[in-house]
Amino acid sequence: MDVILILDILGVIAFSISGVLTSMRKHMDAFGILIIAFVTSVGGGTLRDVLLDVPVAWLTNMTYVYTIIAASLFAVVFRKRLTYFRKSLFLFDTLGIGLYTVVGVEKGINAELNPIICIAFGTMSACFGGVIRDILCNEIPVIFRKEIYATACILGGFTYFAIAHFNLPSSIVFIGAFSVVVSIRLVAVIFKISLPNIYKLYD
Amino acid sequence: MDVILILDILGVIAFSISGVLTSMRKHMDAFGILIIAFVTSVGGGTLRDVLLDVPVAWLTNMTYVYTIIAASLFAVVFRKRLTYFRKSLFLFDTLGIGLYTVVGVEKGINAELNPIICIAFGTMSACFGGVIRDILCNEIPVIFRKEIYATACILGGFTYFAIAHFNLPSSIVFIGAFSVVVSIRLVAVIFKISLPNIYKLYD
Amino acid sequence: MDVILILDILGVIAFSISGVLTSMRKHMDAFGILIIAFVTSVGGGTLRDVLLDVPVAWLTNMTYVYTIIAASLFAVVFRKRLTYFRKSLFLFDTLGIGLYTVVGVEKGINAELNPIICIAFGTMSACFGGVIRDILCNEIPVIFRKEIYATACILGGFTYFAIAHFNLPSSIVFIGAFSVVVSIRLVAVIFKISLPNIYKLYD
Repeated sequence: MDVILILDILGVIAFSISGVLTSMRKHMDAFGILIIAFVTSVGGGTLRDVLLDVPVAWLTNMTYVYTIIAASLFAVVFRKRLTYFRKSLFLFDTLGIGLYTVVGVEKGINAELNPIICIAFGTMSACFGGVIRDILCNEIPVIFRKEIYATACILGGFTYFAIAHFNLPSSIVFIGAFSVVVSIRLVAVIFKISLPNIYKLYD
Repeated sequence: MDVILILDILGVIAFSISGVLTSMRKHMDAFGILIIAFVTSVGGGTLRDVLLDVPVAWLTNMTYVYTIIAASLFAVVFRKRLTYFRKSLFLFDTLGIGLYTVVGVEKGINAELNPIICIAFGTMSACFGGVIRDILCNEIPVIFRKEIYATACILGGFTYFAIAHFNLPSSIVFIGAFSVVVSIRLVAVIFKISLPNIYKLYD
Repeated sequence: MDVILILDILGVIAFSISGVLTSMRKHMDAFGILIIAFVTSVGGGTLRDVLLDVPVAWLTNMTYVYTIIAASLFAVVFRKRLTYFRKSLFLFDTLGIGLYTVVGVEKGINAELNPIICIAFGTMSACFGGVIRDILCNEIPVIFRKEIYATACILGGFTYFAIAHFNLPSSIVFIGAFSVVVSIRLVAVIFKISLPNIYKLYD
């Protein structure tokens, strides 16, 4: 439980900072920056909870709100030096989507949904904050255009059900799926792999 | 019931393919294409169900998900030949919005809402998937700018209550409203009619 | 209660007209104009109610719908003369966000949420309709870029809790918070004050 909380907070920090950086490129004011940091961090989980009709987590857990505010302040003040932190941020973000994917899948399982829908929920939890960020910043969502990002989440979701199929303890299922998301994302970024371009495949 | 299911699936197919075509024009990757196909098909109904606070249909009915995946694969593979299917696609789309309109109106009636709200729900069910598609593709929604599309849904909704007023059997109400949406849309496209341009009217 | 209803209707009128004007600049058709007027007026409150999982107000209260339709018709017909009404519209809008802020804060309190979340809900109620309007019109939301707008709502929300802290009667808390929002917004616009530009502060 403690490890999950720490990963969750690391993910929120990474997502908040990515929101701050995107919104500052668009010359938003202080309020806009904070809102973009907020929706990037909690947007995916909020959509997931609204669709499942369960209570939205950040309404009652203030840890999220304080973390987002602190991370945003940090990002605004130290924005010129954030390049030094680039690798840490990328790592936080990768841990974050790994965690969000598994948490999303488990929320779907709790609601007794079909595995495919659960995997979709995991992917949504991990990716949709970034989609809302890009919509608010008036850009086509970056995850629709490049990078192995959502794909890592989808494969992590499949891994979850593949491992669970063998009746292994839930902690192993959790760690297995989490590791698959994180590994695929790391390998994809380090070796600059992206999805095959279907435009080239068929043209 | 069987006829409704078939119409529904035809509508989902048409909406998925329109999502695929729009997203491919934006050079999205495979994941982006699938997501756009998905939100175009189920976005309107999802917003409707969230506002009504009833369970979201595609969470538990896998037919939607399988149809969307199959239709998207088909559209990507045969995208160069889709012009041959253009008329079929337009027909599917027209049947789809006719059906979605009536289903949306009836969901509003079940929730005991005012007829105007019910008509708004019918229109939203039919049109909002396309609105989300256009937002995600960073365009001003096409239905806000041209074509008799939402207008056909609105008039179909009025027809529903007009016929229901005479205590006719529900199947006749259903078919009457459905036919009005489909006929208006067909006539508008065949004769290239669009809403009067209020900018010209008043300038 | 009567005063609140009047303020609410004035707010809906102002928001509808601002939606009409934005959508006409984008050359939308009659349907698009009406939809933009609608989401600008009720979008913030709808998001708030969906997140709180309480019934959405305009589904059952037709006053909103009739007011939006009437205000939109008015705005389309008299759009060339709306400059004469500019000051009234600005005043309506200011009264509207003041009211929406306080109502949003109180809805959060009723759901027993943390004060910071309540203030966020007040700000969201007041500002999010304009955000959705700008997304649908394919622009970066104006409140993220300039003007003391959301900031007035946030400070009004803090005022609410500051006054409530002294156990004053709820009507005084209401009027105090409302006045702070309205005053800050009036002062900011009259003296052309905006948030300090953090890009200049740190560059």
